[in-house]
Amino acid sequence: MFKNLNVGALGHKVSGFEESVKLAAEYGFQGVDPDLGYARDKGVPAVKDLLQKHTLRLGGFGLSVRWRESDSDKDFAESLEGFVKECKLAAELGVTRCMTWVMPCSDKLTYRQHYELMVSRMRPAAQILKGFGQSLGLEFIGPRTLRASKKQGFVYTMDGMRAVNAAIGTGNVGFLLDCWHWYTAQATVTDIEQLDPAEVVYVHLNDAPKGVHVNDQVDNKRELPGTGVIDLKGFLGALRKIGYDGPITVEPFNEPLKKMPLAEALKTTAASLAKAGL
Amino acid sequence: MFKNLNVGALGHKVSGFEESVKLAAEYGFQGVDPDLGYARDKGVPAVKDLLQKHTLRLGGFGLSVRWRESDSDKDFAESLEGFVKECKLAAELGVTRCMTWVMPCSDKLTYRQHYELMVSRMRPAAQILKGFGQSLGLEFIGPRTLRASKKQGFVYTMDGMRAVNAAIGTGNVGFLLDCWHWYTAQATVTDIEQLDPAEVVYVHLNDAPKGVHVNDQVDNKRELPGTGVIDLKGFLGALRKIGYDGPITVEPFNEPLKKMPLAEALKTTAASLAKAGL
Amino acid sequence: MFKNLNVGALGHKVSGFEESVKLAAEYGFQGVDPDLGYARDKGVPAVKDLLQKHTLRLGGFGLSVRWRESDSDKDFAESLEGFVKECKLAAELGVTRCMTWVMPCSDKLTYRQHYELMVSRMRPAAQILKGFGQSLGLEFIGPRTLRASKKQGFVYTMDGMRAVNAAIGTGNVGFLLDCWHWYTAQATVTDIEQLDPAEVVYVHLNDAPKGVHVNDQVDNKRELPGTGVIDLKGFLGALRKIGYDGPITVEPFNEPLKKMPLAEALKTTAASLAKAGL
Amino acid sequence: MFKNLNVGALGHKVSGFEESVKLAAEYGFQGVDPDLGYARDKGVPAVKDLLQKHTLRLGGFGLSVRWRESDSDKDFAESLEGFVKECKLAAELGVTRCMTWVMPCSDKLTYRQHYELMVSRMRPAAQILKGFGQSLGLEFIGPRTLRASKKQGFVYTMDGMRAVNAAIGTGNVGFLLDCWHWYTAQATVTDIEQLDPAEVVYVHLNDAPKGVHVNDQVDNKRELPGTGVIDLKGFLGALRKIGYDGPITVEPFNEPLKKMPLAEALKTTAASLAKAGL
Repeated sequence: MFKNLNVGALGHKVSGFEESVKLAAEYGFQGVDPDLGYARDKGVPAVKDLLQKHTLRLGGFGLSVRWRESDSDKDFAESLEGFVKECKLAAELGVTRCMTWVMPCSDKLTYRQHYELMVSRMRPAAQILKGFGQSLGLEFIGPRTLRASKKQGFVYTMDGMRAVNAAIGTGNVGFLLDCWHWYTAQATVTDIEQLDPAEVVYVHLNDAPKGVHVNDQVDNKRELPGTGVIDLKGFLGALRKIGYDGPITVEPFNEPLKKMPLAEALKTTAASLAKAGL
Repeated sequence: MFKNLNVGALGHKVSGFEESVKLAAEYGFQGVDPDLGYARDKGVPAVKDLLQKHTLRLGGFGLSVRWRESDSDKDFAESLEGFVKECKLAAELGVTRCMTWVMPCSDKLTYRQHYELMVSRMRPAAQILKGFGQSLGLEFIGPRTLRASKKQGFVYTMDGMRAVNAAIGTGNVGFLLDCWHWYTAQATVTDIEQLDPAEVVYVHLNDAPKGVHVNDQVDNKRELPGTGVIDLKGFLGALRKIGYDGPITVEPFNEPLKKMPLAEALKTTAASLAKAGL
Repeated sequence: MFKNLNVGALGHKVSGFEESVKLAAEYGFQGVDPDLGYARDKGVPAVKDLLQKHTLRLGGFGLSVRWRESDSDKDFAESLEGFVKECKLAAELGVTRCMTWVMPCSDKLTYRQHYELMVSRMRPAAQILKGFGQSLGLEFIGPRTLRASKKQGFVYTMDGMRAVNAAIGTGNVGFLLDCWHWYTAQATVTDIEQLDPAEVVYVHLNDAPKGVHVNDQVDNKRELPGTGVIDLKGFLGALRKIGYDGPITVEPFNEPLKKMPLAEALKTTAASLAKAGL
Repeated sequence: MFKNLNVGALGHKVSGFEESVKLAAEYGFQGVDPDLGYARDKGVPAVKDLLQKHTLRLGGFGLSVRWRESDSDKDFAESLEGFVKECKLAAELGVTRCMTWVMPCSDKLTYRQHYELMVSRMRPAAQILKGFGQSLGLEFIGPRTLRASKKQGFVYTMDGMRAVNAAIGTGNVGFLLDCWHWYTAQATVTDIEQLDPAEVVYVHLNDAPKGVHVNDQVDNKRELPGTGVIDLKGFLGALRKIGYDGPITVEPFNEPLKKMPLAEALKTTAASLAKAGL
C-alpha cells in the first residue's frame, strides 16, 4: 500500500493537478489521485511524465454514474456517457480503481426497492469498469447517527456491502474501506483478514474523537489518523497481512486541519501517517 | 403503421438526409429513418422543421452498441459512450425505436455462452434506452442456410427471441419484425396476433423468391414486397389487428432494384407497398 | 439410442409392469419406461432382475411437479414431496431421464407472467433432479391449431425452449424431442445437429398425416412412424449423428392403432420402427 | 409478541410435547414451539385441543432442509421430501414461522461460493414455505470468536443477512433475531426500528456475561435475560415499536440453568422474562 494525497479530502484547495503533484512529492506522499480534467487538457503522456519526474503513482477516481435514488432513469442513462470517457482516460493513465459511497438509509425507498435500484444500476457501471480492467470500490457508511432519523435503513456495514457486491456479480466490485466506517459500523480486524486482497479497491484513513460512544459518532466530526480511538494499527496491519497494495488516503473531515495553512496541514497529515506506521 | 423510407435499405445512396426527406415525400412515404449525424450538425430544430415541412415522421435508429461475440469487454464498454449520445439525440428528435439483428449461430460460442453474452450486454443497452423512453427491437435471423454450416446454433425464431427478451427483463425489449425472417423461421400469423403491440418495435418488409424451398432460401436473395411467396397480407393484417403504429420499411436485398436508377427504384418500391395495401 | 416401449403411449393398457416387460422383449423393444409404483411395491432388485432377464433398459419418468398456471403455490409446494420420492426411486433404478410438456399458450397469463412462473418453478424441480444425477427434458408443443384460439402465446418451438432452458440455468435441462412437434413447429435437421447430445433427454416418434398443411395439423391426429409426411430419416439421422443414446418411444395418438388388438398394435409399432431404420 | 417456551433451548428435556404444554401453562408462558412428530402421531385436532385447553399459541419450527456446505446436491434434494411434509403439517397446525441459523464462516468455500450455495438452496426452501403461507427466519451468528480462526468469512450481521434475504427474493424471508447475535454483531436499536414487522420471523432472548469484551464473547457462554450486558430494554422496545407479534423464546446456553432441576429452571426463566418486562 502507498500513501496517497488528495488535497480536497483534507478540506483544502490547490491551484491544480501540478501543484498537487508537487506537494505530494514535497511532503513524502507516494501517490496522488488522478485529475481527469487535467489529463484531458494536457494529454496522457504529460501526466505520466509529471508523475515519473516526482516518482508518484496514481490512486483512484470517483464514480460519476448517477445511480442514486434521487436520479431518474434518464439521469442514470445520460451519466454513462461521461463515465465511459472517464474510464477510458483513467485506463490510459493506468488507473484501475474507481469508487463511491452508498447512502445507508432513505426516506422514500424501502430496503428492497433500494437494493434493486442499486444492484441494477451498479451492474452496468461495473461492467463498464471491467471492460477497462478496473475495479469498483463501494464505501459503506457506518455512523448510526446518520441513519437513525430515517424511516428506511440500507446497507451500512462491511458485511452487508460484501453481500451486495456478490449480488452485482461482475467479479470486480469490492470495498472503498474507510477506517471511520469500519469503526462506526463496528467491524473488526477479522473482517479485513478474511478478505481477498482484490476486494479492497481503495482505503481512507482518519480517526474518531475520544469521549464519544461509537454509536454517537457524527460523520463529519473526525480526527487525523493516530489522534483518536480507532485501532489503526489493527486496521493497517490486517491490510498489510492480506497484501493490499493500493492507495491509503487521509480523509479526516477535520475542522482544525481545514483551517491550517496548507503547508502546515500537509505536514500534519504526513506526520499522522508516519505515526500510523506508513 | 406508416410507410417509412430508408434509401440504404434499398441498396441505394443519397447525398444526405435532406435528399432522403425530399424523396420520401415525393414518392409517398410517411416517414424516414433519422440521420443522427445530420441532426448533430444541423441541430434538432432544423430536423424537425424539415420533417414538418414534408409532413414526415421518423422511424428508428440502429443499435451501435458493440455487444457481439467478436467484441471484447472493452469494445462493449467503449461503445456505450457514443450510444448514450445517440439515444439522447434520438430522444430529442422524438425517436423511440432502436434496433439490431442477432446472429443465429456461432463457430466459437456454445449456445449457453452466447446466451449469457447477449443477455448480459443487452441489458445495459436496454436500460439506457429505457432512460430515454425508447424501446429495443431485436431481429431474429431466420434462414436455415445461414446457420447450417456453423457448429453452434443460436436464437433464430420469433419464439426464441421472445424468450430472450423476457430474460433481459427490462420491459422495453421487443422485435424488429422482418417478414423475411418471419417467413424463413416459419412463424405464422398466429404468432403476431398474440403479441402485445409494444413488443413490435420496427418492421421490415420484403419478399422471398418463388421456386425456392423455405429452408433453402438464401439471406441476401430477396424480392420486393408482393412479388414473392411470403403471405404479406397475413403479416400486415396481423400487425394492423394488434394495433402496430410504427414504421414499415422496405429492405429487399434485391439486385435488380439495386441496379435501377434511384427514381425508378423508389417508384417501384412505393408501388410494391401500395400493392401490399399500404 | 434404443427402441423403448410405453404401452400407454400407444393408447393401450396392460395388466402391469411385468406384462409391459414381457411384451417389450417379445416384440423386439430394447427398453421400457419405469413403473415407479411397481418398483415401490416389489423393490428395486426385483425390477432390476426382471429387466436383466429380458435384457431391457429403462427409459424416463414423467415430471409430477405441479408447476402449471392452474397450480397454486401450495399445489406446487405440496407436489415436491412425492417428486423427491420418485426421483430417489428412479435413481436407484438407474433412471436418469425425467420429462414433461409445456403448454404453448394461455388464456390468463401474459407471456411474461408465464415465463416467470415456468422459470421460477422449473428451477427447483431441475435442482432436485440434479441432486439425483438426472436430467429434465421439456417438450415444446408445436401445432399452431392448439394455440391459435388463445389470447396469449407461449414457448412452442425448439428454439424458444432452448432459451428457456438456458434461463433455468441448472445445466441439466434439455428437450423431450417429439418429431411431431419438431415438424409442426417447423424446426429442421440443422436444429438437431447443432445440439449437444446431453440436451436431448428423451425422444418421441410418430408421424403426421398426409394432405394436411403443417399449420393445420391437429395435435391428437397423428400417424405411426413411417406412414406420414415427417422426415423421420432426417430426424433420426441427426440424433444418431450427434450421438444420442437414449430412448425412442412411439407415441402416435392414432385411433386405428388404439382399436387394434394389443398384439397387433405392438407388431405394427415394431414394424414401423424397423421401417424407420431402428 | 408472546413468551414462548422451548424446553430444549434451556438445555433441559421433557417427556414429550404434552409435558411441554403443561409446563408452559404452569409457568406463565403464552406459547410453545410445535412438536411435528407428536402432531403426526396424535393428529392435528388433538394438538389444537391441547393448546386451547391451556390457552397457548405455537411458535416456529426448525428448517430441516440440508442446504449447508457439508451437504451434497443429493442431500439437499433428498431433504426436501421431509421438509414439504413438515411445512404441510405445520400449516395445518397454524404455524407460519420456520427458522435456521447461518454459519458465518467456512474453511472450504470462498465468500462468493458460499453466497451462491446459500441463495440457490434457500430459494426453493423459501418457495415451499411460501406455498404454505409461511416465512423463513434466518439467524445471523455474531460472535467474532467463532469465525476468527477460519479462512473464509461469511454473513454474520443483521445488515448482511438483510441483503441476502433480498437476493433470495421470494418476499417471505426475514430474521430469526437473537439478541445475543444482535449484540455480538454490534447492531443497534436503530436496525430493528427500521425493519418491517414481517421481516422478524422469530426472536431468541438471552444475555451476555459482564466483563467480557463484545468481540471476545464466546457463543456458548451466555446468560439468562436481564443478568448480563445486552440492552434488552432497547431490543424489546424496538420490537414492540415496530409491532412484532411473534414468539420470544429464551435460549440462554447457560450452564447453571442447565444444571438446575427443571422446575427451578423454568421458574428462573419465567422470572427473567418478567424482569425483562414481558
